[in-house]
Amino acid sequence: MDTIKSYLEANKARFLQELFDLIRIPSISSESEHKNDMKLAAEYITESLLKAGADKAGVYPTTGHPVVYGEKITDPAKPTILVYGHYDVMPVDPVELWKTPPFEPVIADGKIFARGAVDDKGQLFMQVKAFEYLVKTGQLPCNVKFMLEGEEEMGSPALAKWLPENKEMLAADLILVSDTSMIALDIPSITVGLRGLAYMEVEVTGPDKDLHSGLYGGAVANPANVLASLIASLHDENHHITIPGFYDDVTELSAEDRNDLARAPFNLEEYKRKIDISEPLCEKGYTIQECTGIRPTLDVNGIWGGYTGEGSKTVLPAKASAKISMRLVPNQDPHKIAQLFARHFERIAPPSVKIRVKEDHGGFPYVSPTSTRAYRAASKAYETTFGVKPVPVRSGGSIPIITTFEKTLGIKSILMGFGLDTDAAHSPNENFQLECFYKGIETITWFYRYFAGDLKQEIE
Amino acid sequence: MDTIKSYLEANKARFLQELFDLIRIPSISSESEHKNDMKLAAEYITESLLKAGADKAGVYPTTGHPVVYGEKITDPAKPTILVYGHYDVMPVDPVELWKTPPFEPVIADGKIFARGAVDDKGQLFMQVKAFEYLVKTGQLPCNVKFMLEGEEEMGSPALAKWLPENKEMLAADLILVSDTSMIALDIPSITVGLRGLAYMEVEVTGPDKDLHSGLYGGAVANPANVLASLIASLHDENHHITIPGFYDDVTELSAEDRNDLARAPFNLEEYKRKIDISEPLCEKGYTIQECTGIRPTLDVNGIWGGYTGEGSKTVLPAKASAKISMRLVPNQDPHKIAQLFARHFERIAPPSVKIRVKEDHGGFPYVSPTSTRAYRAASKAYETTFGVKPVPVRSGGSIPIITTFEKTLGIKSILMGFGLDTDAAHSPNENFQLECFYKGIETITWFYRYFAGDLKQEIE
Repeated sequence: MDTIKSYLEANKARFLQELFDLIRIPSISSESEHKNDMKLAAEYITESLLKAGADKAGVYPTTGHPVVYGEKITDPAKPTILVYGHYDVMPVDPVELWKTPPFEPVIADGKIFARGAVDDKGQLFMQVKAFEYLVKTGQLPCNVKFMLEGEEEMGSPALAKWLPENKEMLAADLILVSDTSMIALDIPSITVGLRGLAYMEVEVTGPDKDLHSGLYGGAVANPANVLASLIASLHDENHHITIPGFYDDVTELSAEDRNDLARAPFNLEEYKRKIDISEPLCEKGYTIQECTGIRPTLDVNGIWGGYTGEGSKTVLPAKASAKISMRLVPNQDPHKIAQLFARHFERIAPPSVKIRVKEDHGGFPYVSPTSTRAYRAASKAYETTFGVKPVPVRSGGSIPIITTFEKTLGIKSILMGFGLDTDAAHSPNENFQLECFYKGIETITWFYRYFAGDLKQEIE
Repeated sequence: MDTIKSYLEANKARFLQELFDLIRIPSISSESEHKNDMKLAAEYITESLLKAGADKAGVYPTTGHPVVYGEKITDPAKPTILVYGHYDVMPVDPVELWKTPPFEPVIADGKIFARGAVDDKGQLFMQVKAFEYLVKTGQLPCNVKFMLEGEEEMGSPALAKWLPENKEMLAADLILVSDTSMIALDIPSITVGLRGLAYMEVEVTGPDKDLHSGLYGGAVANPANVLASLIASLHDENHHITIPGFYDDVTELSAEDRNDLARAPFNLEEYKRKIDISEPLCEKGYTIQECTGIRPTLDVNGIWGGYTGEGSKTVLPAKASAKISMRLVPNQDPHKIAQLFARHFERIAPPSVKIRVKEDHGGFPYVSPTSTRAYRAASKAYETTFGVKPVPVRSGGSIPIITTFEKTLGIKSILMGFGLDTDAAHSPNENFQLECFYKGIETITWFYRYFAGDLKQEIE
């Protein structure tokens, strides 16, 4: 029972049962009706930490959803790892596209299907179970702290305020995060860059009420048509973003860095087939991997206005709205970008409508060097589990709180994620491969030992 | 009791009670959950016709919602008026903007507030009550038929099929319609032109599922952004519509006709104030009245896609859709326009997305000459009630079935509407001024007598 493989074999069924109980709590942070579910999920995780071997663990109130904090301090002289994860999940709509109920996990094709299976309940649970193994078998080589929040999918507003007040309690040598993906099970990878995010909501108002499109159409600016024009104008024909100043702070990668990134395996046909598109749409002059990894982007995340029900209604809507977010790359400041966006949007709107632009959550981009002890330990851990040295990659996604950690706590993060790009995170039928779950647990236990042990000996 | 004014005074309270009972039936034709309400409304109107004095009346099945037919034949040698109206109403959303429940009529500020108050239950009921007065006081000067349908707000698909099968039963000299508006209570007007309509629904599909906007954004065409670009491109900077061939069949009005139209009173400041806009947005080269009366237009009636709930979701949506309708002017063919639209939309869409365009209901434009006996009788009737000669106007709205009447039954229509442009037809807080309701009843009774009587003597 003292090797991780045999421990996993003996405890698999229980691990899944426990994870499933967590997944069944519909902890959607952005929907106020789930406030109590957030509390239930936080309490469940606290219990899990205590059962796994934490000295203490508790639910900490914040200005928003609570943070779960737990720790096991074995020896103050040893290094301390602070594990970060989130127990909140994305909304589930369009719920009619789910093949099974989002909060009733099922196993099919070797995958767990459920909202939160991979993002991030499954990955958070890998951390808890790796910790459990090390504690129960007397092999924990360092101190461990857990900080598990409930607002990551909203941009972590409460955690950002909670951090400075709890700086001492959170003191650590490294933050360990499992909330990203690998290229493939046979091509493990470590995320060394994350894009930032500026998330906006815009509302275009025309008349003070919905009008009859026959009686007024032709003389009154239609907010839905105007919104469409405004959105359309945000990209030019080369798919560059047209907001003045948008690219000003973007650090262009060197030819060498671009060549490095191009070494990650990529199969265009497979990429297109997986998401059923006939061709990609990229910014001119950049590859697909560059467009999703090192280039900023602008996407409509949602748009609505007027009559959207069954049949037809000849209405000239009073309002039309959109949620629009921009992914940012190193050196771009989300608040500055949000301001540029708002100013531009208000400037280009015709005088026949009123415009309201609201900045929703944002986050700074993050780059993690591959020269650190943490990276080398992580690399060796993946290699031990997967038998292949992992590839460093830049991810297009954002985990805004990572930059805040560095700024507020002065601690670097290492991103050891075990998702795959077929996991449908944020989408209907989100899933997590069981093999990823088990290999993730294993890799994390190796990481603890390499990071806390004698690195020189163990990982040369 | 034999003058219309005294009859109205004696029966006002009952008229309103009866109308309110009809309004309380939520007969929304386009929403399938209201199928039974459609039947209930049809049955209620049938009863109303019989009580008002019809020899016979019944609910006639069609391929869709039923038609109510009723008649009173006094003397086959006399003229026959066929009254047309509709008992179906528009959907009520956004329901949160209603100050009172849409299907619970209330009287405030001298107006009836409810869905259907003016469009068209209130106006249909004016016809029933004018008929009742003429019958009950022994003054009905002609034969009367009623044809009241339940699909006008959907484009009358079933009625169009029902007409040819019932041509003989519907034989008449004129169709009398109360489903339009006047300029104002002190500026009565008669609608002599209606725009046609082509109503489309478009769907843009990118990937086969919603994607994580961080992992895919920048490389995968976003259907919401693409839809916005497509919609934006449908107008040029002069607000002309860019669909090739769109204007080919438009009959340009002569300078004289334009001057005639410009004579209708119009106050720009009042127009802007009423709907709270700072300035109109018109096609270059045309006045507001021309843009809503004699020029074709294109409006988004509804748009939706992606995440539209509370908070933020960083999703690249799989689909985005819009309902788009075009108002057409004399000589434009709605099916030809629908085809031009569909072909254009498919042609301009980028290859990175899939496009589906569906033609919803349409209707031909209509122009009614002012030289007919019916127009002269209507003009005299308004003048008798309001003390002012009515102005002929072109309305921007569409009643597609009017053209079908002429084509299928060979009968012309006269549009005697008593709405006002403050009625919020199709919008929240739809209302109908009580004074319009009463004056409408009175005017209709005068119309019967002028039209059926000795016009030469009565109206010079």
